[in-house]
Amino acid sequence: MTTIQHISFEDLKSKYQTPLYIYDEAAIRKQCKVFINKFRHPKVSSNVIYASKAFLTIAMAQLIMSEGLHLDCVSQGELYTALKAGFPVEKIVLHGNNKTKDELLMALNFRVGTIIVDNDYEASILNEIVNDKYKVSVMLRVNPGIDAHTHKYIKTSTLDSKFGMSILDPRTKETIKSLNDNPNINFLGTHSHIGSQILEEHSFYDHAITILKFYKEIKELYQIDLKAVNLGGGFGVKYIKSDTRLDLNKVLPELLEIVYQTANSLEISVPHVYIEPGRSIVAEAGYTLYTVNQIKETINKKKYLFIDGAMNDHMRTALYQAKYDAFIVGKEDMVHDTTYTVAGKACESGDIIIEDILLPDAKPDDLLVVRTTGAYHYSMASHYNRLTIPPVIFVKDGQSKVVVRKESFMDLLSHDEALV
Amino acid sequence: MTTIQHISFEDLKSKYQTPLYIYDEAAIRKQCKVFINKFRHPKVSSNVIYASKAFLTIAMAQLIMSEGLHLDCVSQGELYTALKAGFPVEKIVLHGNNKTKDELLMALNFRVGTIIVDNDYEASILNEIVNDKYKVSVMLRVNPGIDAHTHKYIKTSTLDSKFGMSILDPRTKETIKSLNDNPNINFLGTHSHIGSQILEEHSFYDHAITILKFYKEIKELYQIDLKAVNLGGGFGVKYIKSDTRLDLNKVLPELLEIVYQTANSLEISVPHVYIEPGRSIVAEAGYTLYTVNQIKETINKKKYLFIDGAMNDHMRTALYQAKYDAFIVGKEDMVHDTTYTVAGKACESGDIIIEDILLPDAKPDDLLVVRTTGAYHYSMASHYNRLTIPPVIFVKDGQSKVVVRKESFMDLLSHDEALV
Repeated sequence: MTTIQHISFEDLKSKYQTPLYIYDEAAIRKQCKVFINKFRHPKVSSNVIYASKAFLTIAMAQLIMSEGLHLDCVSQGELYTALKAGFPVEKIVLHGNNKTKDELLMALNFRVGTIIVDNDYEASILNEIVNDKYKVSVMLRVNPGIDAHTHKYIKTSTLDSKFGMSILDPRTKETIKSLNDNPNINFLGTHSHIGSQILEEHSFYDHAITILKFYKEIKELYQIDLKAVNLGGGFGVKYIKSDTRLDLNKVLPELLEIVYQTANSLEISVPHVYIEPGRSIVAEAGYTLYTVNQIKETINKKKYLFIDGAMNDHMRTALYQAKYDAFIVGKEDMVHDTTYTVAGKACESGDIIIEDILLPDAKPDDLLVVRTTGAYHYSMASHYNRLTIPPVIFVKDGQSKVVVRKESFMDLLSHDEALV
Repeated sequence: MTTIQHISFEDLKSKYQTPLYIYDEAAIRKQCKVFINKFRHPKVSSNVIYASKAFLTIAMAQLIMSEGLHLDCVSQGELYTALKAGFPVEKIVLHGNNKTKDELLMALNFRVGTIIVDNDYEASILNEIVNDKYKVSVMLRVNPGIDAHTHKYIKTSTLDSKFGMSILDPRTKETIKSLNDNPNINFLGTHSHIGSQILEEHSFYDHAITILKFYKEIKELYQIDLKAVNLGGGFGVKYIKSDTRLDLNKVLPELLEIVYQTANSLEISVPHVYIEPGRSIVAEAGYTLYTVNQIKETINKKKYLFIDGAMNDHMRTALYQAKYDAFIVGKEDMVHDTTYTVAGKACESGDIIIEDILLPDAKPDDLLVVRTTGAYHYSMASHYNRLTIPPVIFVKDGQSKVVVRKESFMDLLSHDEALV
């Protein structure tokens, strides 16, 4: 791979310098279409909501809008970005495990499509502040207690999770009743999410069945037939060669079929089904382009390949011990016989991009491309060590365009005040 | 503690809102004076260099300048900040494990006081680009192979460290010779740093002795009597009650005495000694003020105290499993009999501020103060989840002043471009 969308990485370096976040716009659009086209069922209505925390800028919100997905926001900042991008407010879902009254009021004032209430306390605030001028759609975040195989930081559904209310907790059903009884609320159903980067199909199916059994309990208890269900995201992506890619063409329609069959066998209404992919829309469409600065061999024969970025633009290795694949531009066909640790410029031992990767012999000024950096890279970037955050470009059909401009050193000081 | 520098936390919340980074300016100044006054010896010359990666803004650089410390920068961004603050360039030390030729040229052009060269490759570049118009002072980063007891991410001196050259490696001595022989370089000696947050005195002493023995080898091999030694930082601070605070009043003069005695017994010149405290200057002077949004009890009886900040302003718990202490304003004298997990607003299970802390019974709108957040909090902050970075204030003698202004949601979009 020496080009991306018919543009050489060398040309991108000349034009934008490095480090550089590159998104293959066609790949994002293709992935959106996979979700839109495959998350369909002749007898189940459905929507795909992009979980914007994976990667959000004005241009990205506009791309998502043009592909017809809905948008999940978890903060006022994400909501503000979506609104500035012109995203239709009725297609926005507001999340958050810990919303303030101000945030709920902001959501109501902007007439956000759906609010996901995290718990009974938030429900009580919302029940107080809604009024008859605008009937807001609401879901309740619940915790199905499913233990998906993933990093504990991105596992969201254990019994002690900070998110939502357990389906085993009697307060959960009472909260559903109170929201459903409110004439100013259009209560849709529950939202749940079992974790991120899940590669086993059965976790998604078990999840849907567990939630629908809970819907059956609600129906039996209160004669409420919940209209919709939001099953969250968590669709895993391929970071390294040994990762098995989840077959979305299979999982997405099967998930709807399972909802359909389960609802029928439980004798509840077939709900409208939402899912919220984030990472799986953007991760594999994203690449980080770095220039090799130095190669260093320690006395123990460990070889470092030092690039011109750092953990500030690539936090997931330090934070989750995440694994990545990478290649050296123009050397893909050479023998990969040298084990390098790719590390950055930050003054910290934790500043590792990839621990132990087989690459061809590398030299200063080589270009290194780290794959699958489209999700949680730009969005987690910091100014640690007062490093600037790389610019973001989209590439498509031989064209590149800036979606987030390069920062200057002056930008780092834009909010600073002198001491006296 | 209901006030800080005679200002109540309630007043600070009214004036600046929360979350808020608060620095006790008097405490920073006091700590600077401890280092300046105690790192002294009648027969050893010395300097204290503030490691700015812990916390740097224009105001902070000006404070450091006014207290007479030197400044350690690890990037062009830090260097730019220091220069904009008016910091005397001759008192700036440029670090970095992975400097580009451009960075070295920038340092030469600005006539930075001292450049710490990381390795033989950097030394070869520097040897090429220096000229006779300006004789730059240079040190070489070496790795003494000392295994300090600390988190592996902040342990910097194992044999496979990315930093410096091992003192056991013959190339290290050759590099010293080549730098020392360059007529356009004033070669001072070595820099080394055994890690961060070290609480055992003997690690510092062992380190100094190890390096001076290496100096003796250099003297015997090349008849070079190195002029100076930079022993780095790593002075631990108190995060939680069970941490024993390092006694700087004892360690600092003893370290110089050990250098003096060791140099004498080895029959080498007593070098000028530099140290580079960062965390120990600012960590305990910093506090993060949050408002409690919600309290939540899971079905397992785990109690969450949700505050209005998140891992984006407090990364060290997620990144290093760091421990923190906190208190609820006005409830310090109440019985602390409830175990809470303090968590934030980010849509991620890893978004924990403090796992399991005993506090008095908490309510929404209580103010929570997290202690010892002065180092690596603002400097590591991100916009994850499009949350804004809290403003930073200094407080002293009943007065507060903004040193980093609050961000707006608009600021989040300041570099964004539309899709078309």
